[in-house]
Amino acid sequence: MGPSLVVVYHVQSTAAAIEARARAIAIEQSVEMPVEAIADPHVLADIVGRVDGIEDIGGGEFRVRIRLAAATTGFEAGQLLNMLFGNTSIHSDVALVDFELPGQFADRFGGPRHGVAGLRHRVGAGHRALTCSALKPQGLPPTALALLAERLALGGLDFIKDDHGLADQDYSPFAARVAAVAAAVNAANAVTGGATRYAPSLSGDLDHLRRQVAVARDNGVDTLLAAPMILGLPAFVALVAENPDMAFITHPAMAGATAIAPPLLLGRLFRLLGADATVFPNHGGRFGYSPSVCRDLAAAARDPWLGLPGCLPVPAGGMTIRRVPEMLDFYGPDVMLLVGGNLLAAGPGLTDETATFVRTVRQHGY
Amino acid sequence: MGPSLVVVYHVQSTAAAIEARARAIAIEQSVEMPVEAIADPHVLADIVGRVDGIEDIGGGEFRVRIRLAAATTGFEAGQLLNMLFGNTSIHSDVALVDFELPGQFADRFGGPRHGVAGLRHRVGAGHRALTCSALKPQGLPPTALALLAERLALGGLDFIKDDHGLADQDYSPFAARVAAVAAAVNAANAVTGGATRYAPSLSGDLDHLRRQVAVARDNGVDTLLAAPMILGLPAFVALVAENPDMAFITHPAMAGATAIAPPLLLGRLFRLLGADATVFPNHGGRFGYSPSVCRDLAAAARDPWLGLPGCLPVPAGGMTIRRVPEMLDFYGPDVMLLVGGNLLAAGPGLTDETATFVRTVRQHGY
Repeated sequence: MGPSLVVVYHVQSTAAAIEARARAIAIEQSVEMPVEAIADPHVLADIVGRVDGIEDIGGGEFRVRIRLAAATTGFEAGQLLNMLFGNTSIHSDVALVDFELPGQFADRFGGPRHGVAGLRHRVGAGHRALTCSALKPQGLPPTALALLAERLALGGLDFIKDDHGLADQDYSPFAARVAAVAAAVNAANAVTGGATRYAPSLSGDLDHLRRQVAVARDNGVDTLLAAPMILGLPAFVALVAENPDMAFITHPAMAGATAIAPPLLLGRLFRLLGADATVFPNHGGRFGYSPSVCRDLAAAARDPWLGLPGCLPVPAGGMTIRRVPEMLDFYGPDVMLLVGGNLLAAGPGLTDETATFVRTVRQHGY
Repeated sequence: MGPSLVVVYHVQSTAAAIEARARAIAIEQSVEMPVEAIADPHVLADIVGRVDGIEDIGGGEFRVRIRLAAATTGFEAGQLLNMLFGNTSIHSDVALVDFELPGQFADRFGGPRHGVAGLRHRVGAGHRALTCSALKPQGLPPTALALLAERLALGGLDFIKDDHGLADQDYSPFAARVAAVAAAVNAANAVTGGATRYAPSLSGDLDHLRRQVAVARDNGVDTLLAAPMILGLPAFVALVAENPDMAFITHPAMAGATAIAPPLLLGRLFRLLGADATVFPNHGGRFGYSPSVCRDLAAAARDPWLGLPGCLPVPAGGMTIRRVPEMLDFYGPDVMLLVGGNLLAAGPGLTDETATFVRTVRQHGY
């Protein structure tokens, strides 16, 4: 086999059945037909997936490594996902947990164009952790969202992102919303002397996405929110490649509960494809990720890998100001903390509450 | 609340906890923030999701109906998926099992442009069941795939689709493959007097997809294979809308094991978005769908719904000629049977084996 990638699955099986099950996965994820019916020597030598290792990890689960030819991915994001998990996603006994890629993939996809360092530079943050909040609820008109954004920005946040539910709805069309919110954030920056960034949420097909990026750029926006599993990985990769001036924060919508390990999908894969920051549900909030999943996810996003820039972890999902010190102790300073609804619940005290959040992050001793 | 849709989930819970859990899902899938922090009366009245019903279905599961404002979807496919399951997909106690949509969605997305009747008409099939096979393994060059296609077409199949693993790889570039296979199928049709159709597999972003559709059309192809969960739903919808002359067969890659009920995703949703035929793993093959899931999926694809044309169910995944009578008894004649690897395993007897498959389907008495 020529250049190859290794895909790692956790498979529920008995010890007696695992070898055959692993071979079946290797075939399903490569030639998808009986190997004995294949005559072509090149296909047999170079294309049929191989079982590279099987490890009993206890609890009726095995860690299975499958080696696939890199050429089968065509070095295209959708086909990469297809090779990693396409048909096997339909099997309930298998979870996709990791991959090992040759450097060609880093060359092709390029990873974060700005990454941890670039995001910090944008907002003049030195080496400290960053702060973020979200504009919501959906249903508000652009003027109301702009007012919220202004009050958040006056509190000194680094980033204000749209809720991922803000798309291009009649009650808040993308173009009108971005113009209003960007102007409000600029006005607040003029007051504070700060550099708060607004990251609007993208939606639709590639034509719509391109028009939205153009609108954002026309309004001075340089950071965008994208949910790759909603937009489709191919569209996300195209956007990243076409807009090297833009930083991308990814959102985990449709990332699923268990079938793909979060550190792989939201950490490694989104980073590979160009996420500069990756939002994910922190442990102890509204979602069920464990502390160890969150630690692994942060490591996958920002640790050295294939020479790619680090992608900033953004733990979120029901976070509160009270948890800031604990979160900073857990993640260290290479993180962006996202507190959304908990800030908005402050009502008329929104700017003060935001300032408290920002101050708590800035003053934290590591 | 104005025009609305109902989303149905199966939730693992206790009787004591289910009401609060259902309310939490309604909030997560709509405003995603504490309701008490929302002041806007329009948002409270029209946008916050509502629990429409809770039913104990036994086994520690509850069937929960949530009503969402239709406007929140922006009538865009990605955002529709986001509203149906975006953040809630990350919760392991919830499966998305059904939805009820107002007619606006049918008007917007249009459903199958050709459907069951159109696919039959294309191949002059009257009222009988259709036949299909797949070109594989990936790794073969275009000439070898074309030779396989010719031998399959000489056996009298209705449709020959690319394996969903055939993308735009160096060893078999899309344009060269489509030209070679389409010519081979045409040559076979000239011999048999038949109307076998070739459905190439699409991949990449919308720019690439459009170029691939143009290549296909230039080669006289009028049927395409697409995996919406790989391409992204927005790209799939754009393709369907832009190419009313093309019929689309969908592939279930990345459909996941359990988090979205297959009848909803592969039946209803793909149909709504324009699938003319939907491939899915039949019971008793390589995948774990039960007979009742398959029956529900076929019903969701082809039964009367919102005035949309029927979408042809295509059971597949390790099927054999021996199972043809049983499958036709199970599904009736409004079906396309897909036998892939089992035919290819016939080696030099491929055309004869294919002819046996075709004859068995044609001669079946219902």
